[in-house]
Amino acid sequence: MDLAHCSLNSVTVKGAGLTEVADLAAQWGFGGVGLWRDVLDGVDLVDASARLRQSGLRVTSVCRGGMFPQPTARLRREATADNRVAVDQAHALGADCLVLVCGAAHGDLADARRQVRDGIAELEPYARQSGVRLAVEPMHPMMASSRSVITSLSEANDLVEAIGSDIVGIALDSYHVWWDAALPQQITRAGERLFSVQLADWVTPIHGELSSRGMPGEGCIDLTGFVADCRNTGGYAGLVEVEILSDRWWAADPKDAVHAAANGLAAV
Amino acid sequence: MDLAHCSLNSVTVKGAGLTEVADLAAQWGFGGVGLWRDVLDGVDLVDASARLRQSGLRVTSVCRGGMFPQPTARLRREATADNRVAVDQAHALGADCLVLVCGAAHGDLADARRQVRDGIAELEPYARQSGVRLAVEPMHPMMASSRSVITSLSEANDLVEAIGSDIVGIALDSYHVWWDAALPQQITRAGERLFSVQLADWVTPIHGELSSRGMPGEGCIDLTGFVADCRNTGGYAGLVEVEILSDRWWAADPKDAVHAAANGLAAV
Repeated sequence: MDLAHCSLNSVTVKGAGLTEVADLAAQWGFGGVGLWRDVLDGVDLVDASARLRQSGLRVTSVCRGGMFPQPTARLRREATADNRVAVDQAHALGADCLVLVCGAAHGDLADARRQVRDGIAELEPYARQSGVRLAVEPMHPMMASSRSVITSLSEANDLVEAIGSDIVGIALDSYHVWWDAALPQQITRAGERLFSVQLADWVTPIHGELSSRGMPGEGCIDLTGFVADCRNTGGYAGLVEVEILSDRWWAADPKDAVHAAANGLAAV
Repeated sequence: MDLAHCSLNSVTVKGAGLTEVADLAAQWGFGGVGLWRDVLDGVDLVDASARLRQSGLRVTSVCRGGMFPQPTARLRREATADNRVAVDQAHALGADCLVLVCGAAHGDLADARRQVRDGIAELEPYARQSGVRLAVEPMHPMMASSRSVITSLSEANDLVEAIGSDIVGIALDSYHVWWDAALPQQITRAGERLFSVQLADWVTPIHGELSSRGMPGEGCIDLTGFVADCRNTGGYAGLVEVEILSDRWWAADPKDAVHAAANGLAAV
């Protein structure tokens, strides 16, 4: 892939601040950046947005809103307030979407899934007011008890269709969904609801289910086929993000991590 | 659960020989044992089968056959030969079923899934001759590159229905499938094809995707609901196995591991 069609997610170079992420992305010729909210702390977002535009960088995603299932009403209110801040940040940056990490089960899976559906439906009008698109990220089933009860693209498609809003779609990361026999058909089904496409590769053994990912090409996923499906049958026309949560790469110099990401993307 | 309705899988006390596994199961009042093939090495199976019967223990499963996808014709022939030995062992022990760990992808997932279907179809007549039932085990998606490309009960049901043999069914382990929104309906669909039901609990963080499991009650799975679904809508009437692959419990005394398993099962 041409890096102009790719976006560098800030977590790939965890520890780097917004300026460093943007500089690295621009130096390598990325077309955009995906931003975790930790790099937005204390940043003037109007100013940052202008500087990113001047560098020729889109903001492909802000990560994250979500965490809808909560054990108490107070915690649900806190999650709601935080999700509105996330919408405001995505709006200020003109991001393509706000990624929703929907939240894990505190006990009953079916109840957690109801809270996710209700939470997105409640957030939708607020996001619509500022023109921010919400992207449900189906996550690997090994994260069902820690990050998200939405564990497949089939399930995310069901959820998004049930909500039935043109600003609620899907963020699809190869790492979370590559194993699924139904993936090609579900990408076709998602179609114009694909708001974000992300790449990370699958490597084993898993040492911690959150941060054992590989750079494109380090693992076993057919990323070329995945991107082709998203482009051709899904019709996704946006930038493809590289988002690598990896204890191994986080221990490396950010420059080396971006170099490896760029090489991996070039081979897709 | 009454332990008379449960079975102790040998891997829960990895390192113990067949005699020790059987003695522990009998002492605690288990109704049966599930046997990994490592405990059968060098054992006279006719004699072992008679002794297990005398102890009042069924053999609920032999683990494992499978590993159908192989990169070369020679390795496929070796897998075929090994699977026939596994069928012979399950026959000699009068086991309820031979569990099939179907094998991982060496590259193309769809091709691996074809090799799984073809491999089971090829093994079926041999198993039928000796009356051994084959139980496809859907495994957690995090094992798709190391153990099995059959990653959900939906997929296992599709596979087993496509093969269409009354001796080819399913081994269902809570650990592998608990996250799946479609699980209750798929248990109903499996129905009389449920040849084996196994319990392990989900605990995080994952330290190695194969052996991070918890004893019943240590994790987040609604095991009571799972067993109820298998019994009521699935119609499963056999013994429920406790099969805990756990580096943590393997470091403990086998007596303590069985004690913990028995306590966990009693609370289900």
